[in-house]
Formats: sequence, C-alpha cells, structure tokens
Amino acid sequence: MSKLVIVGTVAFDAIETPFGKTDKILGGAATYIGLSASHFDVDATLVSVVGGDFPETYLNLLSDKNLDTSGIEVVKDGKTFFWSGRYHNDMNSRDTLATELNTLADFNPVVPKNYTDADVVMLGNLHPLVQASVLDQMTVKPKLVILDTMNFWMDCALDDLLNVIKRIDVITINDEEARQLTGEYALVAAAKKIHKMGPKYVVIKKGEHGALLFNDDNVFFAPALPLEEVFDPTGAGDTFAGGFAGYLAQTNNISFENMKNAVIYGSTLASFCVEKFGTERMQHVSKNDVEKRLLQFKALTQFDIKLT
Amino acid sequence: MSKLVIVGTVAFDAIETPFGKTDKILGGAATYIGLSASHFDVDATLVSVVGGDFPETYLNLLSDKNLDTSGIEVVKDGKTFFWSGRYHNDMNSRDTLATELNTLADFNPVVPKNYTDADVVMLGNLHPLVQASVLDQMTVKPKLVILDTMNFWMDCALDDLLNVIKRIDVITINDEEARQLTGEYALVAAAKKIHKMGPKYVVIKKGEHGALLFNDDNVFFAPALPLEEVFDPTGAGDTFAGGFAGYLAQTNNISFENMKNAVIYGSTLASFCVEKFGTERMQHVSKNDVEKRLLQFKALTQFDIKLT
Repeated sequence: MSKLVIVGTVAFDAIETPFGKTDKILGGAATYIGLSASHFDVDATLVSVVGGDFPETYLNLLSDKNLDTSGIEVVKDGKTFFWSGRYHNDMNSRDTLATELNTLADFNPVVPKNYTDADVVMLGNLHPLVQASVLDQMTVKPKLVILDTMNFWMDCALDDLLNVIKRIDVITINDEEARQLTGEYALVAAAKKIHKMGPKYVVIKKGEHGALLFNDDNVFFAPALPLEEVFDPTGAGDTFAGGFAGYLAQTNNISFENMKNAVIYGSTLASFCVEKFGTERMQHVSKNDVEKRLLQFKALTQFDIKLT
Repeated sequence: MSKLVIVGTVAFDAIETPFGKTDKILGGAATYIGLSASHFDVDATLVSVVGGDFPETYLNLLSDKNLDTSGIEVVKDGKTFFWSGRYHNDMNSRDTLATELNTLADFNPVVPKNYTDADVVMLGNLHPLVQASVLDQMTVKPKLVILDTMNFWMDCALDDLLNVIKRIDVITINDEEARQLTGEYALVAAAKKIHKMGPKYVVIKKGEHGALLFNDDNVFFAPALPLEEVFDPTGAGDTFAGGFAGYLAQTNNISFENMKNAVIYGSTLASFCVEKFGTERMQHVSKNDVEKRLLQFKALTQFDIKLT
C-alpha cells in the first residue's frame, strides 16, 4: 500500500454563510485533505500541530478513518489554530473575521519516521518554509509531491514560495492566485509560466466553475457538479486536493491519463464537502455515495461523437 | 435534408477590444448562427432585414455558404441595423456604445414559403413579438424550436417574452439572464423554474465558463475550450446556437444524448468565433478544423474511470 504524507493545518473554524453560522468546529487543510484521501487504499499520516484545547474526539474521528495521527503534535499549554470567516451571498467570496495562529506560529513539522519514505507528499497550504522543511525530511525522493498554496504567501513570502515550487511536481492553485503569481490573465498562459517555475503539472481550481489540469500542451477540465444549493464552500479546495492525492497514491500511476481520473475523484469528493457546514458531510460519505456521484459526473461530461 | 429557419439580425458591428478596433463590419445574430449552421448538411434560410447600404458581397458571402438569403428583406431606402460596443480588459463584460435600429425598427419577418414547413426553427435574439410572428407563419409544427433572448427583453417586454417562451422547446440564455428571469441564483434552480415556463430543454451559457444543458433531472456540461487569447467574444453565443441548431437539424434526433453532442458542436464552433474580429474566423473554418477541435474537446473532457 502506498504511503501518503499530508501536511497542513488541523484547526478550529467558525463559519458564517447565508444559511447560518457555527461555533468553533473541526477544520483545517490537513483535516479536509485527510478525510478526502481516506476514501482510498493508502497509508496516510497527517503532519500538523494542535493545542491542548483540541478535543480527543476530533483526533479519534481522524484515526477512525484510518488516518495516522502520530504526526499531529499536541502542544499541551498551547491553543489550536483558529480561523473565522463569513461568506457573501454569492458564496464565491468571503471575509476573514479572525485568524489566531496560536500553536501554528512556531510549528516545526516532524514527519513520523516510518513515513519519511512515503510515495506521495501532499503539502497543504502553510508557510512555504514549513512545506520545504517537510521535503527536507524525506529520506527517499517521493514519486509525487503536490503543493497547495494561497495568495497570502505570494504577498509576504514570495521568494520562499518560489523556492519550494521548484521542488514539486504538481501545484494546485485557484484562478485568481494563478493570475497573481504570473501576471497573466488567461489561465492557459498562466499555466505555461508556472510550468517554467518547476511543476510539470498545474491544477487551476475555479471553484463553482471547475478545475483545469495542465501538463505542457495537454489540458483536462472537470466541472464542479451543478448543485441546487452550496451550503458552505469551506474546505472544498482541500477536499479536491485530498481526493486527487489519495487516488494517485492508491493507483500508483502518475500518467496524465490517470491524473485526469484523479481530478474527477477530487471534484467528486469536493461536491460532497459543500453540502453541509465544515467537515460534517465528509465524515459520513460512503463508498456507495462516491460511486453514485461518479456516475453523475460521467453523465454530466461524457458524450459520444463519432468522427468520420 | 432537414430545413432550418434562422431568424435574427443581419447587421453592421463596430467593435473595440483591448487588441484593436474595427470599422463597420458584418455582424448580427442571424449571420453568426447561419455561418455556424452552414457546417452541417441542412437546408437553412435566414429571415432578416437590411438596408440599401448593405453590401451585396456580404449577401454573397452568406449564399456561398449555401445559406438561402431569400428571406432577408432589403429595404432600399433604409439603413442596416448598427451596433457598436467596447469590451473591457477581462473580455467578459462590454459597454454598448451605439445601437441604431434603422430598418429593424419596423421589421416584419416573412418566412419564405418553401420553409414554412421547416423541421427546426432557430429564433435568434429579437423582440419576442417578432419571434412569435415567425412561429405563427409555420404551416407545419416544427420538430424543434430554439429561442435565444437577452436581458433587454426581460426589462421591457417581459409578458411578450413569457408568451413566446411557452411555445418553444429549447431556450438558450446566459447565466445572468437566467438569474434575472427566475430570481434564482443557483443555475440548477433557475433551470427548474424555466422548465415550468415551457421549454423542456434549457441551455445556460456561461461564456468562458462553458454551457449547461438541462432537461428535467438530466444535466450536461460542456466547457469552453481554454484559449491563450480571446480576441473578440462578439457572436460567440450565436455561433454556439447555430452549431447546436445545425447539428440537431442534420441528425434529426432530439434525444437528450444527441443534444449533448449538439452542445459540444456548438462549443467547438464558438471556440473559433472568438479567435478573430467579428465573423472573420467563421468565414474560413474548414471541416478539418472542426474535426481537429472536436478531438481537442474529447481530450479536454473525456476520462476513463471503471467503477467496480
């Protein structure tokens, strides 16, 4: 079974949408990535940090999904990273109401010894130096390194970000971030520039407008499933990344054709994430749910034109 | 061979984009629809009106594409409808600089006698009463009536629009217009409301974000081909509609499965339209060009996931 290292935040989130609001609930990039990757036959560990205030039930929730939590450092006298945000009516934009780094401020990720030879490394959104430090700990060069990042690091740690981007195989980034990183408006042109920065594969996430996968002149597109109601978009991008990484780790095949399938699995899992607040829906997605939704994705996108 | 009636403007356009500007060039919904539909084996006529200032070379350009122009009334002492617009840098929005209705103000469409039994009617964007008058002239109920419209008619002729919408099979409309027509933000919910207004099939065009086809609980999505450069979006929606209508007329099959193919052909033809100013690119698209681009669409969207 392939090993997968997932690095990112494990956090408390408080979320407001037009449909309601939550108190502090389970959140964080690594949490969403892990819950999504747990749908695949992989041996996955989460590398993260939490405070003494982080409930054991949350840790159990993750280990019950066969996620190794030995890489989640618990700082007994520290507090868990907290993020709070409010979504606008269109659900495509949000205001950050609070960001309390807490234990995340001094986070030194430690990859558990038995995972330093992992096949796939998924670097969730974190300071690029923290992401680089995880790569430094790998004793065997991973078959695939995937990195997610955000505009914040382009603003305040661009050089560090460019340095870690050189070392990875796949970047996942949203459309506005791709434009910011490259100065190119057209996403085809932006992807070309990002290829030159290092990554052979570029995934540009467009939220409700789907996701594009680029590999030189090859392009693949997966729509988001059209939903009557998006309840809470929090974590959808991380859930996409978790499905993408989990599928590639399970199949142990990083051809472009197989990466197309990984994009479809990522989109499929993300379509569940937005149906309820936080990780609520992702905690209860069954194998049967996933297969049914994959059939919906096929019906949505597959056609049969015979060329003469 | 199926007969196709295309109703809409034949016009002069003057276009400004970040890449340059044109003097008065050939434009109009029926022109784009016709040029696109001419890629299929159909007997198509254009029903429209122009002034004495409309060059015969433009009419010849259309008849050279095997489009019947006997339904284009030439008002000798009148002037041709003129539209002028300027696109913003993102190419997704534009300002109208001038609209001179001219002969269009008193347009009474006359369907040529030998086309009143046409199989397919494509009602391009025009006053809903003009669209209705074309349907009134059909002596045999068409197998398929497709209607395109815009927000302008929702603002100033909503009742007339709702009346003609009751009589059609397929509506093509953009996302913002679908929201305006229904008051629903989510496009799935908007499509449901539009179904209740009459049309069994609802096509929602999202510009660079592709197009959705709805038929009750069935949904199909086609992306726009990701392009490094969109030169001029004018006419892309009409070109889509022309490909959609032309393909359905040629294949004489209005099943949902075949309509998926029609959406792909529409998207494929629209991807050419935006490559040059106005109709310039559409005048020179070969069968080989279309087949090559259909292969690109397949590579872009088709995947192979085997479910257990």
